[in-house]
Amino acid sequence: MIEDKNPQRTSLSDLGEFGLIKHLTKNFEINQSSTLKGIGDDAAVLDFKDKKAVISTDLLIEGVHFDLAYMPLKHLGYKSVVVNVSDIYAMNAKPTQITVSVAVSNRFPLEALEELFDGITLAAKEYNVDVIGGDTTSSQKGLIISITAIGEADEAELTYRNGAKSNDLLVVTGDLGAAYMGLQVLEREKQVFQVNPNNQPDLDAYTYIIERQLKPEARKDIRTLLHALEIKPTSMIDISDGLSSEIIHLCKQSGIGCNLYEEKLPLDPQLISVCEEFNIDSTTVAINGGEDYELLFTISMNDFDKIKGNPNFTVIGHMVEESEGIHLITRANTKIPLKARGWNALDN
Amino acid sequence: MIEDKNPQRTSLSDLGEFGLIKHLTKNFEINQSSTLKGIGDDAAVLDFKDKKAVISTDLLIEGVHFDLAYMPLKHLGYKSVVVNVSDIYAMNAKPTQITVSVAVSNRFPLEALEELFDGITLAAKEYNVDVIGGDTTSSQKGLIISITAIGEADEAELTYRNGAKSNDLLVVTGDLGAAYMGLQVLEREKQVFQVNPNNQPDLDAYTYIIERQLKPEARKDIRTLLHALEIKPTSMIDISDGLSSEIIHLCKQSGIGCNLYEEKLPLDPQLISVCEEFNIDSTTVAINGGEDYELLFTISMNDFDKIKGNPNFTVIGHMVEESEGIHLITRANTKIPLKARGWNALDN
Repeated sequence: MIEDKNPQRTSLSDLGEFGLIKHLTKNFEINQSSTLKGIGDDAAVLDFKDKKAVISTDLLIEGVHFDLAYMPLKHLGYKSVVVNVSDIYAMNAKPTQITVSVAVSNRFPLEALEELFDGITLAAKEYNVDVIGGDTTSSQKGLIISITAIGEADEAELTYRNGAKSNDLLVVTGDLGAAYMGLQVLEREKQVFQVNPNNQPDLDAYTYIIERQLKPEARKDIRTLLHALEIKPTSMIDISDGLSSEIIHLCKQSGIGCNLYEEKLPLDPQLISVCEEFNIDSTTVAINGGEDYELLFTISMNDFDKIKGNPNFTVIGHMVEESEGIHLITRANTKIPLKARGWNALDN
Repeated sequence: MIEDKNPQRTSLSDLGEFGLIKHLTKNFEINQSSTLKGIGDDAAVLDFKDKKAVISTDLLIEGVHFDLAYMPLKHLGYKSVVVNVSDIYAMNAKPTQITVSVAVSNRFPLEALEELFDGITLAAKEYNVDVIGGDTTSSQKGLIISITAIGEADEAELTYRNGAKSNDLLVVTGDLGAAYMGLQVLEREKQVFQVNPNNQPDLDAYTYIIERQLKPEARKDIRTLLHALEIKPTSMIDISDGLSSEIIHLCKQSGIGCNLYEEKLPLDPQLISVCEEFNIDSTTVAINGGEDYELLFTISMNDFDKIKGNPNFTVIGHMVEESEGIHLITRANTKIPLKARGWNALDN
């Protein structure tokens, strides 16, 4: 579908590797005082002074993590930054820099890469991160994106996965499951398109869930908000693989158990109606969906009053002793062991 | 060829993503005091105190950067670390951490990934870097490796590409062109093997150049040596794309020219004889070959006495005014403009 959208095609080999890098990186600005040297040397140079440096990396592969049949390249560039800075926010840290490496097959014209980098540039502005390096090369097949995100934090701010205590409250930001159902709608439309390419899809009823899939945002507001509320979470993680998988990470690393309440799960009305349309249980979607990029954290019960009634936060459970296990408490008040059914990249 | 070497095959999907990461990373040790938190959270946490942090990243793609027909996976793992830490040494900095992301297709059994990670572990020990994170996923085709290297340095030590001055001496470590000719020998043997799989190649005459291709080393000794000699290079770069390409980088970024002397180029005797065998000009190989991972740097003329006669260093040219251009001065004393004919990933 890329070819259709780009009547103007410039071959990548016309530019050469150095020319291409220069062309694609010309819009990147340096805004962080910690960036001493960005693109253009053997390595970038950063100065975190008395802050700690926080580093995370992700690899995104066409056909495994994204499908260009319905993922516009600009959105893909944006999302690939979002998923990485989300990991930095999950440490209660502030993202400051990213490196961006891209491998493409020859079927990609320059204009396609420009779209991808437009999305990367937009996300770098939105999250105020400097693009300080990377690599551009050819691939045998498809598009490959590797991003490393770097952030900074005071040592006292940093929030790990292993600090949750029994009786802590389990809190999640935003709502759950929408990105997963957005993907199901897009997959369905792709199949309709393959049967009848002239069909014009009416996606008005799915705008929110599709946006959650195609253009998710990382919760950059939460760090500031928690700071203003004088809350330091006892543990934190972002929701990429799915709620159940992330809860199990927090429990295992903290050596505790958890009761998660089905009735507390925050679901958008659009998600509920689409789940009905697809005849899928919305609780299953909320728990196993993945790609929400919301933050999941635990706080001391003493901090409950500080978040009570705040629309950004939902208390969805509480932590218990390790011996009590990790369970979902259903609306019918039955106790079901929670299993990690998160998206497993190696099953693809 | 991987299949032949591994009678025992464990499917990756048997382990699952989390199980696989745990299995592959179990041998990684934390040795750097700057590593506060390694693998196991949303991000790693580093503390560089009053040092500057130095960051570089590379993407290696099967069929573009390496050929598993003659590159054993353990060597590949080792080399993928080497090419990254080499960039850190090229800043006159000390590598301290790496992140390692790997994507593989289902044709790879667990045993193949173990070989790859054995090589990564060996290199991490050799260069004393902590493996602090990464990502493991599936690919549609072949093996993809993305490594980000992190290092540290005092601000005063850092050596950029843009500090060379007219009249500075151009110095290179080690010898040039061997990795490229090693690749030519391996390509030839691959073709022989395809015609006659029972042929046992006799590679005794090529051991040095093949090792330079399959198991290169980064020059971790040079930083210490320069420090002991009280030399701070005015500019520095590592030789990955080829000497001519790197000289042009130094010249362009420093705003100067260069005279490079053909007769000064350091060539190993084995390289010279193999070039004769292949009927290739050894100067062309030394200048355009690439993948040497030696360090190329400029020093003030005043520092010449400190390196004179030192077998680690060869003075191969001197820097001139920008208006004089960038030239190779041949043995016949003719002046040929130097062109960047370095390996261009996008032509592949």
